[in-house]
Amino acid sequence: MENYKQFLILFLLALAVGFGSIAFVLTWVLHYREGLGWDGGAAEFNWHPLLMVIGFIFLQGIAIVVYRLPWTWRCSKQMMKFIHAGLHVLAFTLAVISVVAVFDFHNAKNIPNMYSLHSWVGLAAVILYPAQIVMGIAVYLIPATPVYVRAALMPVHVYSGLFIFTSVIATALMGFTEKLIFGLKSPAYKDSPPEAVLVNVLGLLVAAFGGLVLWIATRPSWKRPREEVTQSVSSNSTSPEDFKTDTAATTRTHLDLETRRRNGKAEESG
Amino acid sequence: MENYKQFLILFLLALAVGFGSIAFVLTWVLHYREGLGWDGGAAEFNWHPLLMVIGFIFLQGIAIVVYRLPWTWRCSKQMMKFIHAGLHVLAFTLAVISVVAVFDFHNAKNIPNMYSLHSWVGLAAVILYPAQIVMGIAVYLIPATPVYVRAALMPVHVYSGLFIFTSVIATALMGFTEKLIFGLKSPAYKDSPPEAVLVNVLGLLVAAFGGLVLWIATRPSWKRPREEVTQSVSSNSTSPEDFKTDTAATTRTHLDLETRRRNGKAEESG
Repeated sequence: MENYKQFLILFLLALAVGFGSIAFVLTWVLHYREGLGWDGGAAEFNWHPLLMVIGFIFLQGIAIVVYRLPWTWRCSKQMMKFIHAGLHVLAFTLAVISVVAVFDFHNAKNIPNMYSLHSWVGLAAVILYPAQIVMGIAVYLIPATPVYVRAALMPVHVYSGLFIFTSVIATALMGFTEKLIFGLKSPAYKDSPPEAVLVNVLGLLVAAFGGLVLWIATRPSWKRPREEVTQSVSSNSTSPEDFKTDTAATTRTHLDLETRRRNGKAEESG
Repeated sequence: MENYKQFLILFLLALAVGFGSIAFVLTWVLHYREGLGWDGGAAEFNWHPLLMVIGFIFLQGIAIVVYRLPWTWRCSKQMMKFIHAGLHVLAFTLAVISVVAVFDFHNAKNIPNMYSLHSWVGLAAVILYPAQIVMGIAVYLIPATPVYVRAALMPVHVYSGLFIFTSVIATALMGFTEKLIFGLKSPAYKDSPPEAVLVNVLGLLVAAFGGLVLWIATRPSWKRPREEVTQSVSSNSTSPEDFKTDTAATTRTHLDLETRRRNGKAEESG
């Protein structure tokens, strides 16, 4: 891998910022707010920011960059796809529980649902995300999908994945803003009490995590090298994803990396 | 240009959504709010969302995709760089006036400045944006900068530009949220009065504009073709940006496009 050290530093930084975000949101709900519970009250609401940061932000981010980890390149592409999809499904499950928590809380308190821009963009993300997962499984995990369909849809798959991820982060920033305005009364948000500063910093951490994931995910030279192709399935499931590595895979990998590095550079500096 | 029709549709859609956003923000401040003025009051505040949407979102977005417009490919790269930089400088100027308006308003009303996550992320963008412009001018407009520096910094220039643009949109969504909560009292934001719906839709338009700009800017096959190079400067200003087109430029352009198209496809479907 080119610039392995740089990759490692940025990936470890992303992990640190991600775990930092989780620590901050935990501190927020456990220390400054009412803790966690499932009673229709504030403690139930608190699952909303917590599970969104853990699932819809951190796990989704890791799922996005999981192909980039060089120590996974020995695993088959098929297994990595299952891990990629599995992490996304887990992230989505946590997001759904998180949404249930906030609807329960609103209903118990007679607060209307779905009136805010936060809820509109958030709901769009919660609808588009499973659509993206189902499309991903249909196109890249079901062997029958032809190669040309996989290749044609890859730019859309990558772009929509990153767009949903970015929208989730923007939604979180709106959510923090809402909760600080509604939750802080005296002192109010504008008086900058410690809770306000903590959650503002949480917002910056979440944005930084997003920025790091987007950088890692969009470096052409950090892509998983393509595997040498000897087709394993004889019928019409002609997919590059079903190919097995052959004995020359390691050598080819280096050649492929070098070619891609040059293409990537040419692309980017054009 | 490959998929010229698709490009045209998406670019016209981006323009429509961008002008739609401006129409919505104008309706908001002129019809639902206090109009425009420069008196330290609400009418001065209203310049803040208006100029941010026109300058920091719409103009910045257009500046980002200006190289992609095929009808500009006859202009020299140098001229397009000046247009790219000029649009960014104009966007920044409007953003600064917009920030002055909100500081004036806060000071006149004794509201603290810089306490919200909106203001933190927004200030970061307002600081990083001119840094990005100055770096861009130093690296890509000053002839003395060596080619390898330009090439090495291009991925950073592109990424940080798109990151700042995305951050500005996230900041706008937080700003809309804040203003709707603070500005709507009876009926409140949660009662979904027409103003709340209008500004929520404005938020969706701004997010859609961002999504379209990011899609257009990140399609390798829609890049401006490289120009054939016959160096015009003899000294150490060995920069691909200082090269002039020669008579073979048109032919080369097609070859280059084809090569880039294939590389781009290989990259993306890898």
